[in-house]
Amino acid sequence: MQQTNSTQIVSGKDIAQQIKNQVKTDVESITKQLKRKPQVKSFIVGDNKESKLYLKLRNKACFEVGIKAVQHEFSEAVTFRELANEIEKTNSDDQVDGIFVQLPLPKHLDAQKVLSCIHPSKDVEGFTAKNMGRLVNNDPFLVPCTPQAVMHILNHHQIPLKGSHVVIINHSTVVGKPLALLCLHENATVSVAHVFTTNLKAITSQADVLITAAGVPNLITKEMIKKDAVIIDVAIVKTEKGITGDVDFKQVKEKASLITPVPGGVGPVTIASALQNIMKATNASLKVKYINE
Amino acid sequence: MQQTNSTQIVSGKDIAQQIKNQVKTDVESITKQLKRKPQVKSFIVGDNKESKLYLKLRNKACFEVGIKAVQHEFSEAVTFRELANEIEKTNSDDQVDGIFVQLPLPKHLDAQKVLSCIHPSKDVEGFTAKNMGRLVNNDPFLVPCTPQAVMHILNHHQIPLKGSHVVIINHSTVVGKPLALLCLHENATVSVAHVFTTNLKAITSQADVLITAAGVPNLITKEMIKKDAVIIDVAIVKTEKGITGDVDFKQVKEKASLITPVPGGVGPVTIASALQNIMKATNASLKVKYINE
Repeated sequence: MQQTNSTQIVSGKDIAQQIKNQVKTDVESITKQLKRKPQVKSFIVGDNKESKLYLKLRNKACFEVGIKAVQHEFSEAVTFRELANEIEKTNSDDQVDGIFVQLPLPKHLDAQKVLSCIHPSKDVEGFTAKNMGRLVNNDPFLVPCTPQAVMHILNHHQIPLKGSHVVIINHSTVVGKPLALLCLHENATVSVAHVFTTNLKAITSQADVLITAAGVPNLITKEMIKKDAVIIDVAIVKTEKGITGDVDFKQVKEKASLITPVPGGVGPVTIASALQNIMKATNASLKVKYINE
Repeated sequence: MQQTNSTQIVSGKDIAQQIKNQVKTDVESITKQLKRKPQVKSFIVGDNKESKLYLKLRNKACFEVGIKAVQHEFSEAVTFRELANEIEKTNSDDQVDGIFVQLPLPKHLDAQKVLSCIHPSKDVEGFTAKNMGRLVNNDPFLVPCTPQAVMHILNHHQIPLKGSHVVIINHSTVVGKPLALLCLHENATVSVAHVFTTNLKAITSQADVLITAAGVPNLITKEMIKKDAVIIDVAIVKTEKGITGDVDFKQVKEKASLITPVPGGVGPVTIASALQNIMKATNASLKVKYINE
């Protein structure tokens, strides 16, 4: 963690490393019990460069902590049935503990329908109805990785959430909705804004904690935030000048009490959260194994 | 719908009746197809008077539209296993289309654990993880009745939600969280407040639509709302003066554009929504029957 005036700048790398160290210890112990490494299989369709880059980063992270990562690539033209068959085969393969389906999928495939083919016990992104519902019911098992990463950062920096006003800019199923649920479970007051919000500044300026995932560079300027607010920038946007988030980092960091940079903020912690989910799924399958024996 | 000055006062009875009329038509048609009436079974534990009254009202409503309603009563001392066994038997009883477990349950029973015994296809209160998750994923099947009732009232009165600021006072799994999800799916900006919210008035006074379910009589006064706000009062509190909600109805109705009374507002529509859910469950089981034949 670096300091600028009194503003804390989050090191996503450091937080991710702490999580990975813990995961690595867990992997060593479970590898002995299973007599094999935990294994995750990723399904990827088509030739999206960013998807392939992200998959490569995640596989590398798996390798670092001792998780076996394999991938199954499909051509752009794969049918729903073909993809679903392969996922279903993997559901019943007791050598595979977790399944990722890399998004986005080509337009002819309904992502929701594809994801719902994953067995909830192997759903390491937490997108199936069963896992989402367990989150609503405050009985979480596998929680989506990006929202979980935001919570890790807030926890790591001991940001109090109870009674705080958290504003989330994003109402997607992948980020905004699960994040709102996680913050409500911490008894924060939660506002969810998005592209249809009419007066965004009126909402963001109330935030004790502002979490933004709009994908709009420079959306958040210093006029839009409260002094000493906590600013978590989830967006990753490619621009001519390089990777950026939603926040005008240079000016906002002077007013915020804590801020995540992009890159190097939420991103690395998201990958670490994915590793944690793989271990949760592996541990759960190990328990089932014991019960059945 | 009555009028006070220009304030619309919602008639929950009228809206409920419209829904019931539609359900009745559906029941007649499906009774012919099934060659029996749709059937719902309610499980009730102990001697809670309010629970018994509510159950009586719901059973009466079922009877009115032609749904068979039976109940299984248990003593306060019933164990989790005994109750779970009976629920599981009913899950596989193809004469029963829907299951209610009347809340609250005695303290020795974990409500979440009991509810999760209900098969999602018969979960007519929409509390199981599978149904909650389908709601998060904007692929709803059986949605909790009270939030659904609020949406019916807003739809009936053509209240625009897209871009509106909806404030919900309640962050429970039964009301606040599913309601927030439903409003987000309509592209409202949504704020969720509750007992830990530090400056409630600052939040409520922003609401284009205020939905309150705190159970605190006179919590919402005219100073706390914006002129011409829509006020939906979900609370039902027994006081010495009778049943009341959270809203100081007399003064707030002068400032609001639309308001629900208590009693006679959300309550009757909630029961009508339960009937709709029974029909959804029955229709789904009929489809499965056709597939298996």
